[in-house]
Amino acid sequence: MQITELAQLCDARPQGGDPALGIDSAADIMSAQAHQVTVLSDGKYKKYLQSCQASACFISEQLLEADIPANMTLLVCKDPEMSFLKAVGALHPEPARKRQISAQAVLADDVTLGQDVHIGPFSSIGERCRIGDNSTIEASVQIGNNVSIGNNCRIHPNAVIYDNSVIGNNVIIHAGSIIGADGFGYKYRNNQHVKVPHVGNVVIEDNVEIGANTCIDRGALGSTRIGWGSKIDNLVQLGHNNVVGRNVIICGQCGISGSCTIEDGAILAGSVGVADHVKIGSRAVVMARSGVSQNIDSGAQVWGSPAKDRKVIWRELAALAKLPELIQKIKNLENRLDKLEK
Amino acid sequence: MQITELAQLCDARPQGGDPALGIDSAADIMSAQAHQVTVLSDGKYKKYLQSCQASACFISEQLLEADIPANMTLLVCKDPEMSFLKAVGALHPEPARKRQISAQAVLADDVTLGQDVHIGPFSSIGERCRIGDNSTIEASVQIGNNVSIGNNCRIHPNAVIYDNSVIGNNVIIHAGSIIGADGFGYKYRNNQHVKVPHVGNVVIEDNVEIGANTCIDRGALGSTRIGWGSKIDNLVQLGHNNVVGRNVIICGQCGISGSCTIEDGAILAGSVGVADHVKIGSRAVVMARSGVSQNIDSGAQVWGSPAKDRKVIWRELAALAKLPELIQKIKNLENRLDKLEK
Amino acid sequence: MQITELAQLCDARPQGGDPALGIDSAADIMSAQAHQVTVLSDGKYKKYLQSCQASACFISEQLLEADIPANMTLLVCKDPEMSFLKAVGALHPEPARKRQISAQAVLADDVTLGQDVHIGPFSSIGERCRIGDNSTIEASVQIGNNVSIGNNCRIHPNAVIYDNSVIGNNVIIHAGSIIGADGFGYKYRNNQHVKVPHVGNVVIEDNVEIGANTCIDRGALGSTRIGWGSKIDNLVQLGHNNVVGRNVIICGQCGISGSCTIEDGAILAGSVGVADHVKIGSRAVVMARSGVSQNIDSGAQVWGSPAKDRKVIWRELAALAKLPELIQKIKNLENRLDKLEK
Repeated sequence: MQITELAQLCDARPQGGDPALGIDSAADIMSAQAHQVTVLSDGKYKKYLQSCQASACFISEQLLEADIPANMTLLVCKDPEMSFLKAVGALHPEPARKRQISAQAVLADDVTLGQDVHIGPFSSIGERCRIGDNSTIEASVQIGNNVSIGNNCRIHPNAVIYDNSVIGNNVIIHAGSIIGADGFGYKYRNNQHVKVPHVGNVVIEDNVEIGANTCIDRGALGSTRIGWGSKIDNLVQLGHNNVVGRNVIICGQCGISGSCTIEDGAILAGSVGVADHVKIGSRAVVMARSGVSQNIDSGAQVWGSPAKDRKVIWRELAALAKLPELIQKIKNLENRLDKLEK
Repeated sequence: MQITELAQLCDARPQGGDPALGIDSAADIMSAQAHQVTVLSDGKYKKYLQSCQASACFISEQLLEADIPANMTLLVCKDPEMSFLKAVGALHPEPARKRQISAQAVLADDVTLGQDVHIGPFSSIGERCRIGDNSTIEASVQIGNNVSIGNNCRIHPNAVIYDNSVIGNNVIIHAGSIIGADGFGYKYRNNQHVKVPHVGNVVIEDNVEIGANTCIDRGALGSTRIGWGSKIDNLVQLGHNNVVGRNVIICGQCGISGSCTIEDGAILAGSVGVADHVKIGSRAVVMARSGVSQNIDSGAQVWGSPAKDRKVIWRELAALAKLPELIQKIKNLENRLDKLEK
Repeated sequence: MQITELAQLCDARPQGGDPALGIDSAADIMSAQAHQVTVLSDGKYKKYLQSCQASACFISEQLLEADIPANMTLLVCKDPEMSFLKAVGALHPEPARKRQISAQAVLADDVTLGQDVHIGPFSSIGERCRIGDNSTIEASVQIGNNVSIGNNCRIHPNAVIYDNSVIGNNVIIHAGSIIGADGFGYKYRNNQHVKVPHVGNVVIEDNVEIGANTCIDRGALGSTRIGWGSKIDNLVQLGHNNVVGRNVIICGQCGISGSCTIEDGAILAGSVGVADHVKIGSRAVVMARSGVSQNIDSGAQVWGSPAKDRKVIWRELAALAKLPELIQKIKNLENRLDKLEK
């Protein structure tokens, strides 16, 4: 694709270099070569621009500077990150794949399929399931009974969806994720743990993406729910009856026990743990590896285990680093006092 | 089901309301509606009873009170939690599923099947395997050679069971769990990590439940063993040669390195880590996110990383919170001493 | 196998006992019985030797002692651990399995297979894939398009390998692992998280072993790379664009965010977390459950969250344990000062 074409597609204005040059792929600013396009979206990477071999670079007006490589065309635009994403998509389109219902898939007789559904080999789909238009079920996806999947979804290989799950439109579920297994609940009676029946389900709203090997347990009664546009990374554990709001971000290896509420726009960084029945307020940020055992206010930024305001934790940790010398100081004070008292 | 019927089934005595009313499902006390049954098992939820719309509510003699909604039948019983579980099971029976050996499953010639075994499509079962009466192998379960599975087991889709595993009766293994992969062991020689062969196996006793995407590694020599009635949640890592006792609870995302002993009735809360060769005593409780590197006494309750008696850790954390102001206090003391010494 | 034979095979010299005796299996020194071979590789287990019932025991010259059981043949050798590993392999050979391309596997027309490849049932292999000589693809492995797998690899059941992955020779991937799912990247615009396209891939070099249910995400642009001989345990999360060097050890449940560099020979113990863009130097050791947010020097040994030199952390924790009594001490000092000032 010519630079001029790419510029037009991505709402950018070409400046300098040879805009007639062809671009065949995208790369980051530290590794881009001739015939590649890159992006400078953050001032701290400016130092790499001068030696960068890319033929084109998305850049904002704000970061524009005189001193650019002669062979590079700048693609000046309002939002270089988004223009670059568009370019990546255009330069690296996913190859078209044959869409079909595999002869090696097993579908119950009463499955309802929308238009242009793809079902890969070794997938099974249970009774009364519905799959919407343009949805793709990859190989070896096992879907129980009475599951509803919306339009334009993509379920990657070896995902498992238990009975009665409800999945909206434009949902991506990566390989190996388990939607709707029983929650972890027992009552201890007569020297044994008696299983709490889990008769609820999982509801996943539109535009949710779920990473690989993540587990979302069904509700005991009622639903475990993932709200519109929320994004969940790999190897996350989401227990029974959690309610996750809209546009929530849950990073890799987080564990949310059960019956929690994670409000809209909250961000849980990697490996965060949340105890039962906790509410995390909207737009709250829980920093990596925190353990949350109490409610978190909207907009709060917390850290540590148990999690507190992150500034408080920083202060505590800074103080802790001084503690060994403090102990010596106190000994000195005692000695001085001993002398004075004598 | 009529309330009177339900009462009889669940060992409860109906009181008040209209016991002839039909109940069609169960719900928790905060969301239950007419024609639903709920439970009040904990006094702290008593406040929800007055406004609750449920037609029936299990309750103990102890929590009985005069002031109950007119439309509600109380179901007075000794153990409301257990009566409610029974009601949930009765009101939400799992739909009967056709039981068969799928034509799309691959079984070695010498597999021994008990009576009424179900094997779903895309499952493979290796040589010399035995599967007991009434056991259910769901879709796409891959079972190696010489595996024994008892009666009344249920292995959910996409679970993998490696060679020589021994699984008792009434065992549930949820989707995506991996039983018997090689443990993580190497010897470093001549600039490379040489793999330690793993020729042991995994033994799972009766009444164990294992969550989704959990990994239980085989023994290097000898067995990794999960004792009678123990319950293991999702995404747990259980390394080689661990011996887990009876009725142990291991919550989500715990990681037990290897050659550990977890004695009967111990409880490991979420995301607990345990180092190699550690013994956790019977009925010990390890609180969430703790890191255990030394043996834990029976009945102890520990927390933190490294884990200590939980009261000790609480005291340390409370002290740490005061540390920043303490540093100021010490400065003041120094100043006062300076003055006195002059 | 006779002891003399075993000795010859494993470069050991038999001494004492009856070297004509047969050995049928291997066991550790605490449980070995007659007709078993064991090893004494560490002086701290010497106390078990006297009562050990094993018929043979690998031992170094250094640990040799007069006082050995009469029925035991010592197998004196330079490297007892390695000799024992060899013996375990010889005594417990993996049973030969029929090698074939299963009739229940689905291969694209243009797949290239080396000699003696095994492909289990319910595996699918996409277009333009290449699989090298003697490689084994177990049951229900799902491989996308344009994937290259080298010689002598073993891919266990239910692993998933996304498009364009490149896997070297002698690579083992355990069950349920996901190679090449999209990384976790979004840009927040107009009240929604816009997905960053992931058009890179995963490259795994020779002699790598990857545990069960581990996730290795593809690069956004460019590759996520696992270097020669590195070993990765179960349930590990390796995010997009990480570069892992040679002979690196990553233990269970570690989480490496993205764009990190883990240099040759580094060791990450269990449940370590690493933030984005961090470099961990060669041969550095990160102790269990640490959270690494800044670069770690080569050869450093760090611990804690945030991770620091492990001696510094030990000192801080030791000081913290004294903190509650320190607070009392400071109160006493204040009282004494009060008196003096009066």
